[in-house]
Amino acid sequence: MPKNFAVIGVGGYIAPRHLRAIRDTGNQLVAAVDPKDSVGLLDQYSFDVKFFTEIERFDRHLEKLRRGPEENRIHYVTVCSPNYLHDSHCRLGLRAGADVICEKPLVINPWNFDALEELEAETKHRIHTILQLRLHPALIKLRESLQQSTEQHEVELTYITSRGPWYQVSWKGHEDKSGGVATNIGVHFFDLLLWLFGSVNGIKVYHSDESRMSGFIELEHARVRWFLSVDKTDLPLSAIAGGKTTCRSITVDGKEIEFSEGFTDLHTRVYEETLVGRGFGIKDARPSIQLTYAIRTAEISPKDDLVHPLLKK
Amino acid sequence: MPKNFAVIGVGGYIAPRHLRAIRDTGNQLVAAVDPKDSVGLLDQYSFDVKFFTEIERFDRHLEKLRRGPEENRIHYVTVCSPNYLHDSHCRLGLRAGADVICEKPLVINPWNFDALEELEAETKHRIHTILQLRLHPALIKLRESLQQSTEQHEVELTYITSRGPWYQVSWKGHEDKSGGVATNIGVHFFDLLLWLFGSVNGIKVYHSDESRMSGFIELEHARVRWFLSVDKTDLPLSAIAGGKTTCRSITVDGKEIEFSEGFTDLHTRVYEETLVGRGFGIKDARPSIQLTYAIRTAEISPKDDLVHPLLKK
Amino acid sequence: MPKNFAVIGVGGYIAPRHLRAIRDTGNQLVAAVDPKDSVGLLDQYSFDVKFFTEIERFDRHLEKLRRGPEENRIHYVTVCSPNYLHDSHCRLGLRAGADVICEKPLVINPWNFDALEELEAETKHRIHTILQLRLHPALIKLRESLQQSTEQHEVELTYITSRGPWYQVSWKGHEDKSGGVATNIGVHFFDLLLWLFGSVNGIKVYHSDESRMSGFIELEHARVRWFLSVDKTDLPLSAIAGGKTTCRSITVDGKEIEFSEGFTDLHTRVYEETLVGRGFGIKDARPSIQLTYAIRTAEISPKDDLVHPLLKK
Amino acid sequence: MPKNFAVIGVGGYIAPRHLRAIRDTGNQLVAAVDPKDSVGLLDQYSFDVKFFTEIERFDRHLEKLRRGPEENRIHYVTVCSPNYLHDSHCRLGLRAGADVICEKPLVINPWNFDALEELEAETKHRIHTILQLRLHPALIKLRESLQQSTEQHEVELTYITSRGPWYQVSWKGHEDKSGGVATNIGVHFFDLLLWLFGSVNGIKVYHSDESRMSGFIELEHARVRWFLSVDKTDLPLSAIAGGKTTCRSITVDGKEIEFSEGFTDLHTRVYEETLVGRGFGIKDARPSIQLTYAIRTAEISPKDDLVHPLLKK
Repeated sequence: MPKNFAVIGVGGYIAPRHLRAIRDTGNQLVAAVDPKDSVGLLDQYSFDVKFFTEIERFDRHLEKLRRGPEENRIHYVTVCSPNYLHDSHCRLGLRAGADVICEKPLVINPWNFDALEELEAETKHRIHTILQLRLHPALIKLRESLQQSTEQHEVELTYITSRGPWYQVSWKGHEDKSGGVATNIGVHFFDLLLWLFGSVNGIKVYHSDESRMSGFIELEHARVRWFLSVDKTDLPLSAIAGGKTTCRSITVDGKEIEFSEGFTDLHTRVYEETLVGRGFGIKDARPSIQLTYAIRTAEISPKDDLVHPLLKK
Repeated sequence: MPKNFAVIGVGGYIAPRHLRAIRDTGNQLVAAVDPKDSVGLLDQYSFDVKFFTEIERFDRHLEKLRRGPEENRIHYVTVCSPNYLHDSHCRLGLRAGADVICEKPLVINPWNFDALEELEAETKHRIHTILQLRLHPALIKLRESLQQSTEQHEVELTYITSRGPWYQVSWKGHEDKSGGVATNIGVHFFDLLLWLFGSVNGIKVYHSDESRMSGFIELEHARVRWFLSVDKTDLPLSAIAGGKTTCRSITVDGKEIEFSEGFTDLHTRVYEETLVGRGFGIKDARPSIQLTYAIRTAEISPKDDLVHPLLKK
Repeated sequence: MPKNFAVIGVGGYIAPRHLRAIRDTGNQLVAAVDPKDSVGLLDQYSFDVKFFTEIERFDRHLEKLRRGPEENRIHYVTVCSPNYLHDSHCRLGLRAGADVICEKPLVINPWNFDALEELEAETKHRIHTILQLRLHPALIKLRESLQQSTEQHEVELTYITSRGPWYQVSWKGHEDKSGGVATNIGVHFFDLLLWLFGSVNGIKVYHSDESRMSGFIELEHARVRWFLSVDKTDLPLSAIAGGKTTCRSITVDGKEIEFSEGFTDLHTRVYEETLVGRGFGIKDARPSIQLTYAIRTAEISPKDDLVHPLLKK
Repeated sequence: MPKNFAVIGVGGYIAPRHLRAIRDTGNQLVAAVDPKDSVGLLDQYSFDVKFFTEIERFDRHLEKLRRGPEENRIHYVTVCSPNYLHDSHCRLGLRAGADVICEKPLVINPWNFDALEELEAETKHRIHTILQLRLHPALIKLRESLQQSTEQHEVELTYITSRGPWYQVSWKGHEDKSGGVATNIGVHFFDLLLWLFGSVNGIKVYHSDESRMSGFIELEHARVRWFLSVDKTDLPLSAIAGGKTTCRSITVDGKEIEFSEGFTDLHTRVYEETLVGRGFGIKDARPSIQLTYAIRTAEISPKDDLVHPLLKK
């Protein structure tokens, strides 16, 4: 039997991946909410989606379904609202008697996990999140090969993804709403690093502004120099020459990890796993949130020889 | 020299066609505004677009440019906000010393044209609108052939384009904001009919609700039965069987007019014409706005033999 | 020990009466939310009120308090948001582990009571509402005298309270948000009539528009002609001459009920009663909501001799 | 003949003083706008005020009146919106063919004056602002006595006005929207000092955070130590003991200036003066805006013996 989904934040840019994942896993979207009403994309998925512009009316609808016939119940609430609203919208889902699938980052500040975990226990429903890189075939393979040995690796993470001025004007540019660059565009990669190389022994942050952050992380099995930026002037010349606006690179012991392919349907893969009980929960999400929180609140260290090469310039 | 464009309503669903037209005519987008901040699509066009979420701050920016060096001036303001804001945003463009390209319908109520015309005269700037069907090759050909004779034609216009419940929740579902079905989804076709068959001698409206309207128009050279709907249950069985969600048909003397091809770049064509001084102005837009206003405010007539076949059922 | 209160809708016009009631009953306001941020009035009550402009962040705060030390818990959530949000905000209060005190009307549509009652049962918390006329000394006295006899009374209710054009522009002017005139300005009086004269045997509605409604109600012990209006042109000449903008009158068997005094602190009286366990709950609120719902959805009857004198004109 | 007024920001906390001033100078309010719709206070002034929640619809209405009969024209637009919107709303007023009366600060950044001055010249309409302390009888007297001599004075300005947490959550707490403490709560006093003691020779800023600022100003005829705060913990013990939440003091050569009386109707006085052509214009407002801008952007100086006594602690 197909599951009924309700989506919070259906007007945002990441929503289409969730809508596709819902459809492509054979389930159905039945309700959606977004303060903005320009959501004609819904018609590509279903003509039977109750739509609301106010979270209160959406809550009323879910509460009505919760008390109605079994077949109409919302089984999953998908949360793809701005980051700082995630935990509140997760609670809304749990209270409506649904499981939750929430975009990353699940929360901005790690202490908000506690309230979510207790509410999971109270409601007997689960919160899952999107850690899609963990399902990327090339990265799974990499992890297996890394687990063969116990040596310490030298890792360099570089992620520059150009954004125009709109970025800083939007909620993404406000640290209290997005968590800042390390959280908003970096959390995926930090989760990946933790998953590949084990837990954190120490961090340094060399630079932090609204457009770029850079630092060093000592992991169980790796020493990581990282550099994240949304400023197009950080792109290497080679990227600019090639007309690229994004530069994504992870090297392990100087060797580039190739994972630019196979991204297209990872949201769907996460949904598939989640629906059969192998989703990623709070326990999985916590380490990378703790790390990004530590990075956000760290004092700036003077540059030393652990600094990422792009920051040396 | 490329012209500088500023876009009002850049977060809405029709904006991409304008952004493409600006780019494909060799011009540049330099400023944009939308109350919603989910406008990452801008990065596909330029990384140098000043973005605002408040019309007042956008106004300040345009005013600054107006007083600055010639090469930074805004030459065109594109308006693709909700219908009921069009005339106010056109004024903003004129006052900023720019010409305006405004989505249809230019206004909801015809008397608002007067204020716009006077402001054109005061500011020496022009307002243009998007009447793209007039640039459709097949329809141009049809018009030419029709102009050979003076006979009266029997025309049937059917336009059913399914919309989910979001439509009625959004501004499109509020008559004071969209003008209702005849204005919001019909104005293009009414303009086309007037352009093909001459001015209006009389109208009847047989049905009008928030999802469908139907009526009859006596034109100089045609008697038109029309039916417009956003309700999927109005789709003919053949369309449903074919998995279609839209049914668009114009017959002239029983013969189907084929114009389903050649739609993709009509916005760009309108921009091309506008930029060389052959755009559509208030004078061109007025008749169809007067007609849709008359339809919106008409008393409902009892069905007679002039009724559209879909309404007979 | 003083109770901790949180207020939803603290920027609205009725909020000050709740703030005063909280203070004058010896309790403290500790949190508040309103989408508008012009809430300097809070400083008249306390400098220690956490304030939020987003309901989601308010929810996070309440959830945190729910899990914290006993002395910081929210004991009561006061709801004075727009009518159509009341039930959703009541749920928010119950789920936060608080009792609720909600402005009238508790809900717009009676079926929403069911969900609230079930949630009361689930959460073991209670919802109370403001039926302040039941605590008006003159009306209590009237009720006692009426209960002496079983005769049928002739009652005339007239309530005209002038509102400028802002009223129709605001949420109060939208029936789906306020419930319309009978619900928004009438529910108090309908509750009073039911409390004084018993349950409903039948209704007629003679007139209904966005500014005025008028009808007839057959109660167990009274036949009521009623007239409600927010249009100043409905004011009797005598009121206009006296510079009055409101005309409120209830006559029983032709005799005017005097209750214009003693209104000032009725919210505080309701709080006092609620805090000692004698508040008005869903059971008390239901009949008048059912009646106003019936009035809102009734077909219009032709005028007959049961019509209110002001409508005859 | 009474003048017609339109008010932008009629739902905010300062609006009532403008509404009273309009009424008490014998004029009439005919239109108003505010994004929030809780504006029942309008009914205390007039039942014939067109109200809008969107600035675009307000603009349409003003444009209509501009083209209509002389007696319906808007003569004055009053601006009492958040600070950062002032200049944009002033432009709206000028373009609508009206003079403008704008709350302080007229602008946040001094360069925005230039665009306003040019638009004054283009439209032949004037912008006035509220510098009400210059009309305070006690302060006028003080100024006269100061002008007798040319000596240098020692001045201490202390203004502590407690605000709860809502202040920082609201637009007042965002420097880009309010200008920060020195601009938002200080600009009146800085204007007063400049008016009393002449132009600025130099400034120092010793402390600046979101709740308090303190510094030193060398004026032509005075050396000013100043301290501004919205944090109640800055109140002197004497104030707290007296249950006061505000402490306002200006001493000249150690002598307290008494001006706590006579504040109530200063807005009305400013209106009176403005209406007879003696209002305060851009020329008058500019020096204090330049000063507050300089203070906002100054580097922090180490404390020296010119520091205000409250900062020494």
